Amino acid sequence: MRSVITYGTFDLFHVGHLRLLNRAKALGDKLIVAVSTDQFNAQKKKKTIIPYSQRAEIVGSIDCVDMVLPESSWDQKRTDIKKYKISALVMGDDWTGKFDDLRDVCEVCYLSRTSDISSTEIKRLLSPLDDGHMKDLRKALDTVASIIASLQ
Amino acid sequence: MRSVITYGTFDLFHVGHLRLLNRAKALGDKLIVAVSTDQFNAQKKKKTIIPYSQRAEIVGSIDCVDMVLPESSWDQKRTDIKKYKISALVMGDDWTGKFDDLRDVCEVCYLSRTSDISSTEIKRLLSPLDDGHMKDLRKALDTVASIIASLQ
Repeated sequence: MRSVITYGTFDLFHVGHLRLLNRAKALGDKLIVAVSTDQFNAQKKKKTIIPYSQRAEIVGSIDCVDMVLPESSWDQKRTDIKKYKISALVMGDDWTGKFDDLRDVCEVCYLSRTSDISSTEIKRLLSPLDDGHMKDLRKALDTVASIIASLQ
Repeated sequence: MRSVITYGTFDLFHVGHLRLLNRAKALGDKLIVAVSTDQFNAQKKKKTIIPYSQRAEIVGSIDCVDMVLPESSWDQKRTDIKKYKISALVMGDDWTGKFDDLRDVCEVCYLSRTSDISSTEIKRLLSPLDDGHMKDLRKALDTVASIIASLQ
């Protein structure tokens, strides 16, 4: 049996995450997902919207995921790979080359991410005071300013 | 075999959604989830962050979900219940009483929602009235203030 492992934050779970997990699972028979803890994210100066327990609960409920564990340090990968007899480590291609030192213990695969879908893009879409709103607001203030100026 | 159906939008999939789906599934053997289409949401003046195809893809990937179908009108529930031989319709308790007219064709259950977790709350957390916007706004207000001061 081939076990595959991947690591990630999985904030605001979206189809980009889902498709990466499905493609990771397709590389083996069992998929283990290590979800970064809030403490580990704090070390990385990364802040999530959704807390660890909820991110892990969602990832664990996905069809193709067999096991979830917490990721709490940069150097646990080598330990996990040995402990869980991992055949392949899978990461998104934004990490290309970063984990090549682990090729002595398992395969290392970097999968391309789904274009145009990311937690960052979702956060941008949710910005309620967008550029359009800001221009409107600025225009209104400029109008006020010009009226006041005309009083001088 | 008892089939259960539920209806929802499932924008920005979160543990509130997940727990409701798990509790719906526990009421039967098969869980069908009808996900509202973008067109139907537009009729309801409801705008989602995530488009229908992605919302349906995520819901369909959840362990306890056996089938996903599109919800495209208010009156399709009765048709679905007959077509899929549904034993129970499950809705969140924000809908309590609203679908009691369907009790002649199946059980109707309203489940309590997970407190403090909702798409609305996530959107609020994400509201980025960020530093750049604030600086622009502040600058415009300072201009107005200085013009007013010069009038004194």
